[in-house]
Amino acid sequence: MRTDYCGSINTRYLDKTITLYGWVHRRRDHGGVIFIDLRDREGIVQIVCDPDNAQAFAIAEKIRNEFVLEITGTVRHRPEGTVNPGIFTGEIEVLVSTIAILNASATPPFQMDDDNLSEAIRLEYRYLDLRRPAMQHNMRLRHKVGMAVRTFLDQQGFIDIETPILTKSTPEGARDYLVPSRVNSGHFFALPQSPQLFKQLLMVSGFDRYYQITRCFRDEDLRADRQPEFTQIDIETSFLAENEIMGLMENMICHLFATTIDVALPASFPRLSHIEAMSRYGSDKPDLRIPLEFTELTDLMREVPFQVFRDAAQKPDGRVAALCIPGGGELSRKEIDEYTQFVAIYGAKGLAYIKINELAKGLEGLQSPILKFLPDTVVQEILSRARAQDGDLIFFGADKAKVVNDALGALRVKIGHDRGLVEDTWKPLWVVDFPMFEWDEEENRWQALHHPFTSPREGHEDLLTTDPGQALSRAYDMVLNGVEIGGGSVRIHRQDVQAKVFQALNITDDEAKEKFGFLLDALQYGAPPHGGIAFGLDRIVAMMTGTDSIRDVIAFPKTQRAQCLLTHAPSNVEEKQLRELHIRLRKTEIANS
Amino acid sequence: MRTDYCGSINTRYLDKTITLYGWVHRRRDHGGVIFIDLRDREGIVQIVCDPDNAQAFAIAEKIRNEFVLEITGTVRHRPEGTVNPGIFTGEIEVLVSTIAILNASATPPFQMDDDNLSEAIRLEYRYLDLRRPAMQHNMRLRHKVGMAVRTFLDQQGFIDIETPILTKSTPEGARDYLVPSRVNSGHFFALPQSPQLFKQLLMVSGFDRYYQITRCFRDEDLRADRQPEFTQIDIETSFLAENEIMGLMENMICHLFATTIDVALPASFPRLSHIEAMSRYGSDKPDLRIPLEFTELTDLMREVPFQVFRDAAQKPDGRVAALCIPGGGELSRKEIDEYTQFVAIYGAKGLAYIKINELAKGLEGLQSPILKFLPDTVVQEILSRARAQDGDLIFFGADKAKVVNDALGALRVKIGHDRGLVEDTWKPLWVVDFPMFEWDEEENRWQALHHPFTSPREGHEDLLTTDPGQALSRAYDMVLNGVEIGGGSVRIHRQDVQAKVFQALNITDDEAKEKFGFLLDALQYGAPPHGGIAFGLDRIVAMMTGTDSIRDVIAFPKTQRAQCLLTHAPSNVEEKQLRELHIRLRKTEIANS
Repeated sequence: MRTDYCGSINTRYLDKTITLYGWVHRRRDHGGVIFIDLRDREGIVQIVCDPDNAQAFAIAEKIRNEFVLEITGTVRHRPEGTVNPGIFTGEIEVLVSTIAILNASATPPFQMDDDNLSEAIRLEYRYLDLRRPAMQHNMRLRHKVGMAVRTFLDQQGFIDIETPILTKSTPEGARDYLVPSRVNSGHFFALPQSPQLFKQLLMVSGFDRYYQITRCFRDEDLRADRQPEFTQIDIETSFLAENEIMGLMENMICHLFATTIDVALPASFPRLSHIEAMSRYGSDKPDLRIPLEFTELTDLMREVPFQVFRDAAQKPDGRVAALCIPGGGELSRKEIDEYTQFVAIYGAKGLAYIKINELAKGLEGLQSPILKFLPDTVVQEILSRARAQDGDLIFFGADKAKVVNDALGALRVKIGHDRGLVEDTWKPLWVVDFPMFEWDEEENRWQALHHPFTSPREGHEDLLTTDPGQALSRAYDMVLNGVEIGGGSVRIHRQDVQAKVFQALNITDDEAKEKFGFLLDALQYGAPPHGGIAFGLDRIVAMMTGTDSIRDVIAFPKTQRAQCLLTHAPSNVEEKQLRELHIRLRKTEIANS
Repeated sequence: MRTDYCGSINTRYLDKTITLYGWVHRRRDHGGVIFIDLRDREGIVQIVCDPDNAQAFAIAEKIRNEFVLEITGTVRHRPEGTVNPGIFTGEIEVLVSTIAILNASATPPFQMDDDNLSEAIRLEYRYLDLRRPAMQHNMRLRHKVGMAVRTFLDQQGFIDIETPILTKSTPEGARDYLVPSRVNSGHFFALPQSPQLFKQLLMVSGFDRYYQITRCFRDEDLRADRQPEFTQIDIETSFLAENEIMGLMENMICHLFATTIDVALPASFPRLSHIEAMSRYGSDKPDLRIPLEFTELTDLMREVPFQVFRDAAQKPDGRVAALCIPGGGELSRKEIDEYTQFVAIYGAKGLAYIKINELAKGLEGLQSPILKFLPDTVVQEILSRARAQDGDLIFFGADKAKVVNDALGALRVKIGHDRGLVEDTWKPLWVVDFPMFEWDEEENRWQALHHPFTSPREGHEDLLTTDPGQALSRAYDMVLNGVEIGGGSVRIHRQDVQAKVFQALNITDDEAKEKFGFLLDALQYGAPPHGGIAFGLDRIVAMMTGTDSIRDVIAFPKTQRAQCLLTHAPSNVEEKQLRELHIRLRKTEIANS
């Protein structure tokens, strides 16, 4: 019987006899003595096998990496000079009395301490990859985060209620995963993109405070760091206004960071209106660790000779803005060209700039291809608005507002990292006062910025019909270091308002009834005012561990091709199964299956 | 802003001014005064609206059932004789100062305190059904159970790790739900019947102690009280033998019952071998609340003239057993006939009996159609083995052992209930020493009694090939009041043993490699000895609440037809979606869709 975990042994155990189970992390012979680094989930301890213990020694000689051992021995100080202060067990070693091999191991495809593995091999041998201390730590942290959330919400009177996985298509916009029904031939379940409608129904049912840490599913193209299934901390409350909900959620996130990674977040998070976030950072999820901000110039450029700026400034949906880079004067021609290519990704046709060499020299002290197109007074005003100093560089964006925001917003983040301007800290904030709708150029109609159940701000109900673009919502996003980690809203609890929103979205009554008639029905029977939020658990844990990929905090993730390299899912199935489900493959696909 | 929950107000609040949110449970006018029973998740409180408060009274007159109200008022004693000791708030009432209607309600399809509703209407209006205090209680209890499990396991060092929902068919025997892949055309994911393989892989990864409260899916015909998706408390450990695992799980279940429904289960559960359970109760999940036990007679009947008994006793797979019913002598001819029909369901061709009127009179004191076929000595032996008393009745079963066990086992339970012999208590036990395999008459081959990853008992490895029927496993089932609430086993951690089991099950190497080659691979790389268990959460909570149907402890369950009457899932989908998934409906089904 195990008395302790390998990683937990230190000088407190001196002279104690202990029994450990674990894996052979490394074995080496040194002066006729065999040393084994024995590893379990708590860490690694050094085992010493002496030749005078012939029986144990004979076994030790057979041992290879990743063998599973049971070892009994006594704890002693490591000899002078062999102490390893780097690890918890570094001062001690265990002198073996008995060894048993519980299981052998073939030579593993990689070393457990190799940190330069291709992701393909890590995912194929995930059960070995997960042995690596970094992955053990990630999964442990993920567990801690989940428990911290549950403990906090439980104390706040929230009730964990499970909602269906086999359900009906929810109109979140993305593509659904479908599940053919055997019993109801020709019909399909959909896997939930979120429990949105169910959690609202639970408020109608009077549960008052609901939460669930639940799996959600989106059949999207996985360009970004996305997974077909992901985990959401899903929360809904009744009778609370946005301020109360946001306050509660701030406390939860603070509790989370304090109890799991010992980080103290600000007691109250700053709030930025959507319009201010766009105007200062060109983004609705600004990374506040980066001190750079946009300078608004649209008003200034309406009459200038420089046509690029003038046209943009005169367009109703145009914008001209500047981004002043402290010390940016040292940027080479080549670097500036690279940034010009970078902003092109976001549709910017160019990247005008002014280098400030020496303000004292006035315009002589400036260096820029566009100066000749700008009146001196305008240039002076730019410099003062941007608070430019000697050695700075000012970049310009002039185009449709969306292009300027995307391009300069991305440039702001890139330069922030390139020039080491990113503060090493955690900067949470709320973004609020979102518009209800955004105009969809392609579909040529309004789309819900969050989802169609988001409540308009009080007094904006009429705008839903008169001027949808002006209607603001009661939505709020929690942003941390440039990542949206949570988003929510106060919901619509009155059927007439819900109907208006559907109208604005061109959702016909029939469509609405077909898709979520049960919600509309529910709103008739005493639906309370309610609202909630959903956090991305994978993303939060990934940020805590400092990894760029959520795959590093998911035990068995899928690839960008939505495949599991370990189990080879998805796989083809027997014709018999398809027949039971009343479906067949399309001709063209049969070859592939 | 709410100051308190309706259900939490009592005399401690006297003279306090409070603000409540809730639903109008009932409204009545009485002597010009309006009384409102206001309901929230914590309970109901009586609101009094006085005519002299004209403004509030005017609003109160508009109020109907299930309106959502905000009420501010002061707490006072109820007048003499109107106190209701039945409810927590029964001594007080709240005199209204202000009322606001937060939302109106159409007349609901049923009263929230109506307990005689058809399940169909309850499921169609689930959001209203869930308002009913009984359902509120059930969902709260379910939450408490989940938290109690998590708290216990967390303290024991278990780590909650999420396993995939979109995965590969696991060979649990039942039918899989399939999910067509869009990206990998012609291929399908399967929803997990359990995380069995993943939790074993997590042990290979060295997590040592894993748990998950997770959804599992089985596309079975829902004759029994089953759901297409159900929730499992899934647990796996490394380096523990069955006794240690069983002890840990006993502690968990005791903790669960103590902390959630204040029931003290025995500190250690009795253990019955599978063979003993079958011989004494004819069941591998005996209800120990019922004092009746079988009497073994097979050995006694090998030579008797009564052919029915003799044949059964001589068959290698035959059995003759008796069930003595204390006071059963009073059973009428009609009742005995009904029991005879009842056992016929289980394949019994008849139900022989002996009534014991007066033992003192010897055989004269007995009454039975079969006496003349049985030697007196045999009859005497029957009476003594069955410890028969005056007024008792002895039922007989003689057939294949399976038929006798099923028939008399079911009869034992039925009579136990009919005659009020069921002890009002909780009787947990472990059933152990299961055979590895059971013979499948139809398929004419061995089937795994648990699953193919269950370890044979030490020393029984060779029987896997020489005499599979004799091989015992290291499986264990937890049984409570006749219901199997959990089942688990020590798993196979050696590849060679796993291969033998697959051979015994006629699973070819190719089939094994195709289905779970990744597990076989994993077993090569230092798999630790490991084992675990899975509990049915829905069933446990249902038993705690005393309901017969797990649908009463699931927020949004499906019908026996695997349909959701609320959302109308499954539903038909657009042709475009099917095309994206590379599937089409079979001709015959298109009409239905």
